[in-house]
Amino acid sequence: MAFENRQWTLAARPVGYPKESDFKLKKQLVPAAGDGKFIVRIEYLSVDPYMRGRMNEQRAYADPVAIGGLMVGGAVGRVVESKHPGFNAGDPVLGNFGWQEYAVSDGTGVQKIDTAIAPIQAYLGVLGMPGMTAYFGLLDVCRPKTGETVFVSGAAGAVGALVGQIAKIQGCYVVGSAGSDTKVKYLLDECGFDAAFNYKSDTDYVAVLKKLCPRGIDCYFDNVGGPVTDAVIVSINPFARISICGQISQYNLEKPELGPRPWTMLLIRQARAQGFLVFSYADRYPEGMKQMAQWLKDGKITYREDVMEGFENMPKAFIRMLRGENHGKQLVKA
Amino acid sequence: MAFENRQWTLAARPVGYPKESDFKLKKQLVPAAGDGKFIVRIEYLSVDPYMRGRMNEQRAYADPVAIGGLMVGGAVGRVVESKHPGFNAGDPVLGNFGWQEYAVSDGTGVQKIDTAIAPIQAYLGVLGMPGMTAYFGLLDVCRPKTGETVFVSGAAGAVGALVGQIAKIQGCYVVGSAGSDTKVKYLLDECGFDAAFNYKSDTDYVAVLKKLCPRGIDCYFDNVGGPVTDAVIVSINPFARISICGQISQYNLEKPELGPRPWTMLLIRQARAQGFLVFSYADRYPEGMKQMAQWLKDGKITYREDVMEGFENMPKAFIRMLRGENHGKQLVKA
Repeated sequence: MAFENRQWTLAARPVGYPKESDFKLKKQLVPAAGDGKFIVRIEYLSVDPYMRGRMNEQRAYADPVAIGGLMVGGAVGRVVESKHPGFNAGDPVLGNFGWQEYAVSDGTGVQKIDTAIAPIQAYLGVLGMPGMTAYFGLLDVCRPKTGETVFVSGAAGAVGALVGQIAKIQGCYVVGSAGSDTKVKYLLDECGFDAAFNYKSDTDYVAVLKKLCPRGIDCYFDNVGGPVTDAVIVSINPFARISICGQISQYNLEKPELGPRPWTMLLIRQARAQGFLVFSYADRYPEGMKQMAQWLKDGKITYREDVMEGFENMPKAFIRMLRGENHGKQLVKA
Repeated sequence: MAFENRQWTLAARPVGYPKESDFKLKKQLVPAAGDGKFIVRIEYLSVDPYMRGRMNEQRAYADPVAIGGLMVGGAVGRVVESKHPGFNAGDPVLGNFGWQEYAVSDGTGVQKIDTAIAPIQAYLGVLGMPGMTAYFGLLDVCRPKTGETVFVSGAAGAVGALVGQIAKIQGCYVVGSAGSDTKVKYLLDECGFDAAFNYKSDTDYVAVLKKLCPRGIDCYFDNVGGPVTDAVIVSINPFARISICGQISQYNLEKPELGPRPWTMLLIRQARAQGFLVFSYADRYPEGMKQMAQWLKDGKITYREDVMEGFENMPKAFIRMLRGENHGKQLVKA
């Protein structure tokens, strides 16, 4: 059987925020699966902030996407044809399949998933990369202790909302920032945050942090960077731990912003700031997956998805996520 | 016996670099030692960068020196009179005695020292606070591994020159920056650095770091901050460790400088930056002292002192140290 595949490729390196014209849709037939290979029909695709970095020419931690190359990204789907002994037609799978409707794979990096635990698309969120990012970035990098104050920027994002809930499970006082009143309400009413503010309307960040974090900040999980982070740095307690997960406020700047240098504060507070990339924890994913699935089953963790229908809308979904217009994990249903 | 004491007190909070008029010399008689107390005749006093922070009104990690109050600082001397069972006349001691010629003490925080190992003033340098700072700040915070590249800013300072030598003992490739050609020569010829540059004449820091650290930077021991640190941040390797020990380039600014924010680099390099204050290692000083003394005895560590004669010159010595005009550990001989 021949499947017609559509792929989103990189047409141009974005200047500032990506535009839809930076992407190009290509069509082609999927070749039949050769020996040891299988074909996946993608059902949901993830759009995530890290993809913006991969569109730049400069290498960061991984090679950039080439002009004309397939956009990178995680996706879930079901095997539709297989000549691979480990995968059968019908198997639900997760992999870095890229922005396309069908993927041919030899199984490398592909994980069979259990849709009895959660719907297939949860493996792009709470049980996938964002979930592992929240789990290890908070527990292994910040190492929060009961009673400490944890502040999360980008708190209503796919990662941030999980970080806050995991911190609550650890017995912390949890505060977050988000980009709308609706998101703030979501953090307070559904995610159990102790306090939260809208960084677009409440712009004296030092003052609002002082009010909402009366005992200072012991752990900071940073998804955002920029002026919110500047304000957190002057609000940290002795021996604070900062987990640098993302810097989304900086990814689409045409030239880098300057800011107050943080070193003197880190010094006098004896604080630690650590950048991390979730794939460095790959060998511990089973631990993280097991725990997240358990918390999900026990009703200790909630999550939201923001699903855009139609594979053709991948660039739209990606751009709205970068602009923070999504509410919950941004997905595209192919 | 009544001793006439002189004390340097804080007359005014400095704006920018301290001036001599920010200090005031006071004279008074030392009261006889009461029960459980002893009197120390100070022989050498230390001036160190951290003292600048204590002159500001804002509390950092310790209370500021009050206007009219005795300037803080470490000093060594000998007991001249004692009604304390643990200290006898003639004992050489180290303590935070402040900027004065005689100190009355009940023994709190005072350490008897062994002048058979090294001259008394070495306990203000290689065997004292600067030595412990280098030892724990490098070995415990940076944790260098054999073959890694260690870069030290302020490398010819009391701490920096020791950091480089300890890093060489660990089998690292060691590079430093300093403020004169003479200091650079000292690092190369006497301290065993593999490379060094004069940050005042070689001002394209990114280029010079690329040249002198061809395998990138794994560990950064920062005494200085500012533009040198900005350049190091874009030169670090994956999993780099940064020990934030001092920020002397920033202490005398009338208003804080802005700089490029470091977070994206820490993120994509999965790097760790950690501020530390040496007194947090107080319970491990015996370990550090023992090891530094052994290295000294084995001829594996060298050090330099820059001694100014005359207690009345304390402010002068302090100011020249802040300006980097000293070469070696700045001391004042009382």
